[in-house]
Amino acid sequence: MSDGIVLLGHGSGGILSQELIQDLFMPHLTNETLGGLEDAALISLDGLAVGSLAMSTDSFVVKPLFFPGGDIGKLAVCGTVNDLAMRGARPLYLSVGFILEEGLPLADLERIVVSMAAAASEAGVQIVAGDTKVVERGSGDGVFINTAGIGVVEPGIRVSAANAQPGDVVLLSGAVGDHGLAIMTRREGLRFETPLESDCAPLNGLVDNMLGVCPEIRVLRDPTRGGLATALNELAEASGVGISVGEADIPVHPAVAAASELLGLDPLYVANEGKLIVMAPEACADDLLEVMRAHPYGREAACIGRVTADRPGRVILETTLGTRRLLDMLSGEQLPRIC
Amino acid sequence: MSDGIVLLGHGSGGILSQELIQDLFMPHLTNETLGGLEDAALISLDGLAVGSLAMSTDSFVVKPLFFPGGDIGKLAVCGTVNDLAMRGARPLYLSVGFILEEGLPLADLERIVVSMAAAASEAGVQIVAGDTKVVERGSGDGVFINTAGIGVVEPGIRVSAANAQPGDVVLLSGAVGDHGLAIMTRREGLRFETPLESDCAPLNGLVDNMLGVCPEIRVLRDPTRGGLATALNELAEASGVGISVGEADIPVHPAVAAASELLGLDPLYVANEGKLIVMAPEACADDLLEVMRAHPYGREAACIGRVTADRPGRVILETTLGTRRLLDMLSGEQLPRIC
Repeated sequence: MSDGIVLLGHGSGGILSQELIQDLFMPHLTNETLGGLEDAALISLDGLAVGSLAMSTDSFVVKPLFFPGGDIGKLAVCGTVNDLAMRGARPLYLSVGFILEEGLPLADLERIVVSMAAAASEAGVQIVAGDTKVVERGSGDGVFINTAGIGVVEPGIRVSAANAQPGDVVLLSGAVGDHGLAIMTRREGLRFETPLESDCAPLNGLVDNMLGVCPEIRVLRDPTRGGLATALNELAEASGVGISVGEADIPVHPAVAAASELLGLDPLYVANEGKLIVMAPEACADDLLEVMRAHPYGREAACIGRVTADRPGRVILETTLGTRRLLDMLSGEQLPRIC
Repeated sequence: MSDGIVLLGHGSGGILSQELIQDLFMPHLTNETLGGLEDAALISLDGLAVGSLAMSTDSFVVKPLFFPGGDIGKLAVCGTVNDLAMRGARPLYLSVGFILEEGLPLADLERIVVSMAAAASEAGVQIVAGDTKVVERGSGDGVFINTAGIGVVEPGIRVSAANAQPGDVVLLSGAVGDHGLAIMTRREGLRFETPLESDCAPLNGLVDNMLGVCPEIRVLRDPTRGGLATALNELAEASGVGISVGEADIPVHPAVAAASELLGLDPLYVANEGKLIVMAPEACADDLLEVMRAHPYGREAACIGRVTADRPGRVILETTLGTRRLLDMLSGEQLPRIC
């Protein structure tokens, strides 16, 4: 694959990323826990009387470091908080590893740290372990941040990418494409009348409320790298089901639609950092939509489709023109260093 | 400090690193758990019936990626395993985050992953969560790796940097300086008759055996960045005690001593990746030395000194010339990107 070298596309969250994981990492690192390729791993612990423990990690290399709606620090906290929440876990503790480039203004670093503290406070998690390394000028790019986190899954909660069942509803917590377009327009120096803002946010509070009305939630996933389309494909494959979604039902902010057209991007493939997909029994749909819309991070929640028995592993888009087409995974690299 | 920008010395593990932590990170991120500045944090978990949980993280930016005795992958696994073990925890689970530079040969990445798998297997830990990001050529340097880990501390074990008490013996598990000198001579292209090899190794098995004969161990610390001298200073400060060590009692391999002289380095300030300092009641000293010397990673264990009530926060070196001098912390950057 790829002439034997790492390509930017290997970090895209799309097909090349999957190949890297399947062909290079999994043959050597696989075990029962890692094999599932969930957002967070469920791990067992002797002496843990109730529930189970979830662990997750993410590194952040977003460029620029500061963008409308957030910065690399907020992103680093929210990213791992959300990965834990997507497993139905209550995030509790984070570790933080900084890789700093020589010459970074300390004022920038402080701004990032302040932002991490605020995000951790909002999410109700504690940063309990940290590490800092410094590399020479030109061997890094300002700041890279890794966060790892652990959380607790209450007994009875069974959320997994592999749990979708035919007949389940597919809900989305809000409009897609905000984060990726905010980064891209900032990077390209584009200005719009309505400024584009990242949706970067901790989703654990929203998930708490959702599990409160529907503990039977089967699947949660935040559509980050690769966007909604890639996430839906991963879920269809992991659960061995088909997924059918209606193009007209997927919320996209007008400014995002306009910027996407200008940049030649499809918002369905653009990263989000404060949105989630939920699949649940149909009986839960109304209750879920109600609590989602009552939460600041779910106000634009919508039912976008349905899990089907036919075409397992595939995602079908019913277009606004009334046609049906296959919605593929992201192939290659659409937006490098989006998170 | 430092004209307001990040310097290489901020990553040294010495005085600049401490300033960065105290002046920039702690004011914003401090909480009861992070405040202790231990190698790993002890965290509480509702429903955990016995013992407590430890969490730690470390990023690795070592250059070159491959060196005699190890590589960045082995180092990344051992580093976090050891940080957990230094809190008296049994390491159980690791997460891994890769930041890859575009153009890295996939064969190099695979070699690193194979090495991580072997180290994890030796240490008896599972890699349960992972993440990969890719940055453009020139924005990274081959591979950076973050690992985070969790482990369990058995009830009754109370190991902390703050627990040293006057009268405790200070033992060292073997010769110092091997890792740092192996990296430096490799980087400088120097060759010696006796090749220098990193001591990179997982120390949790050794610690298990030590806690088996002396559950009252008060302090464990692996002298990584900043070396033995810096670690001893940190411990003296954290415990509010003095430490007196004998220069002649500190094992240094002849090849390391020779290379240090050539390069103008002091092996007491050079990083180790497979050594530990232990402080324990004197009654345990013989038993500890016996189990340490019976273990492959403790064969050259030695008693190097004593915890004292006088000169709290200071480390005194009794030199081979019979004089006594203050052994300071590392100031500035001695060896960048040593781990």
